[in-house]
Amino acid sequence: MSEKRALVAGGAGFLGSHLCERLLADGYSVVALDNLHTGSEDNLVSFRDRPRFEFRRQNVIDPLAGEFDEIYSLACPASPVHYQADPIATWETSVLGVRNLLKLSEKCGARLLHASTSEIYGDPLMHPQEEHYWGNVNTIGIRSCYDEGKRAAETLIADYRRVKNVDARMVRIFNTYGPRMHPQDGRVVSNFIMQALHDRPITIYGDGTQTRSFQYVDDLIRAMRLFMDKPRDEVDGFFARHKLGTPVLNTGNPGEYTMKQLAEEVLRLIPDSRSQIVYEPLPADDPKKRKPDITLAKELLGWEPQVPLSEGLKSTIAYFVTR
Amino acid sequence: MSEKRALVAGGAGFLGSHLCERLLADGYSVVALDNLHTGSEDNLVSFRDRPRFEFRRQNVIDPLAGEFDEIYSLACPASPVHYQADPIATWETSVLGVRNLLKLSEKCGARLLHASTSEIYGDPLMHPQEEHYWGNVNTIGIRSCYDEGKRAAETLIADYRRVKNVDARMVRIFNTYGPRMHPQDGRVVSNFIMQALHDRPITIYGDGTQTRSFQYVDDLIRAMRLFMDKPRDEVDGFFARHKLGTPVLNTGNPGEYTMKQLAEEVLRLIPDSRSQIVYEPLPADDPKKRKPDITLAKELLGWEPQVPLSEGLKSTIAYFVTR
Repeated sequence: MSEKRALVAGGAGFLGSHLCERLLADGYSVVALDNLHTGSEDNLVSFRDRPRFEFRRQNVIDPLAGEFDEIYSLACPASPVHYQADPIATWETSVLGVRNLLKLSEKCGARLLHASTSEIYGDPLMHPQEEHYWGNVNTIGIRSCYDEGKRAAETLIADYRRVKNVDARMVRIFNTYGPRMHPQDGRVVSNFIMQALHDRPITIYGDGTQTRSFQYVDDLIRAMRLFMDKPRDEVDGFFARHKLGTPVLNTGNPGEYTMKQLAEEVLRLIPDSRSQIVYEPLPADDPKKRKPDITLAKELLGWEPQVPLSEGLKSTIAYFVTR
Repeated sequence: MSEKRALVAGGAGFLGSHLCERLLADGYSVVALDNLHTGSEDNLVSFRDRPRFEFRRQNVIDPLAGEFDEIYSLACPASPVHYQADPIATWETSVLGVRNLLKLSEKCGARLLHASTSEIYGDPLMHPQEEHYWGNVNTIGIRSCYDEGKRAAETLIADYRRVKNVDARMVRIFNTYGPRMHPQDGRVVSNFIMQALHDRPITIYGDGTQTRSFQYVDDLIRAMRLFMDKPRDEVDGFFARHKLGTPVLNTGNPGEYTMKQLAEEVLRLIPDSRSQIVYEPLPADDPKKRKPDITLAKELLGWEPQVPLSEGLKSTIAYFVTR
């Protein structure tokens, strides 16, 4: 059997680099595409010299070439501090990038997995969020470039599947952490760890009672690969039975922690930190609560998260110590 | 004072052609851009020979040229039967079209008015809908190409305004009817009138108790012109006071009618019709109820709809009789 060829758009990012590594381990030849806007070649160090790996420095919105069996769409800045720095570029990456990858999938006959996001649920009115939920999102706010860019990407994928028969699948990724996170991504796990490691105050926005779920990166990558390995017939039948026109799975860890609990856990794991917890006002449109319903992923993939928060945080802290 | 130059994208459509006519009457030179996908040159007949008018047959997603003071963004199929016929093209028209018009606005320093839609509210959970409402929209359904395409357009406009200082404004247009509506647009006013004129059964989807508001086209065009005539300072101050980052106004008629009432009114105005009312199942994702809150438009523009339904329907029926 000849080896499978995968394209990973955003392959030098936090999630993309873990995915590349896993695909190489699974025997794929892998092309990682990244413009290094938020991704970094440092993330490729442990595998970039392998013979079946190629890195292409390119923007996903520019013309794409190559023949692939599987295309993974992960190219977009994902943390507010990064995606709000150039909101027009964020919108374009999400919207024009996915259009480009869909065209390539159609041309190659490649199966496509798109990294959507829990942000498409916005500040949800349903808890926990299941895939049928439509979301509660501001179209004109400062987070909208990401949220609405990702929503419009889902829409185009659904139509490429219906109209052009592209074998496209989506995961809606909830808060994910682990080694190779960007230390300055401004999100809570990296913030708390960096603050604790450098004895700076640990900043909680709001009163600290808002909850988040935290998925360790290995759990996510496993779900993505399991989803892509499913035959199309089985996937189509499953989502038809569940009255979802498009194959879309929540992937996240349903364990809920308040910001205060997370801060305390980080401090417990970095016992010599002299950091104190301080409270700051909540930024605009920040969702107050979000938690995945992963019933469908469990049923289709036999998957659920396995890495407990304390263990995942330990690996992440070990990585941050070396930065 | 030299005359003002306006570009009307979608200028051969139902709304666009009325807008061109009004701009010519107001002393503008007008370029109407349309690929005639759903628009028609028939809509231009009464004014196309005027010296200050030019028609360009072109897709709004292709490169745009020219110098304009005002740009009106109305290019997108707007009725489900049209926008679902080629959902990928609908999404592209909305998303790539508005991007193109924003770039042109930035280049020219033109003020831009974008025709957004009540569809961005989806199947709303708030009644009536005010501009602060975020909406309830399916990202992956058969209506999503239009709804999410329009939402993503709003987002890009808001960011072009914030980042590139483009003087962009939006109206969210609720159900609008009048002469030059497409007779086969599949929407309720044209459906009922055509059915009544041709003695065919009048089809109500669902039980007929879902309500809609109906705005006569002249009322809408007046609101659009009033909005564009407002100085930027006044507009910015007004929307800042109302905690809306981006200038966006609902324009619609808050008078509510059930589908059954509308059918009965059409039959009353076409007394020799032999049509009977029949009931059919509701299509997927069809909003059950929608009604604009027009408080902001009243306050900023001193505007409210003036044409009663019976009068507007009479003009519309008179137009349809000649088709």
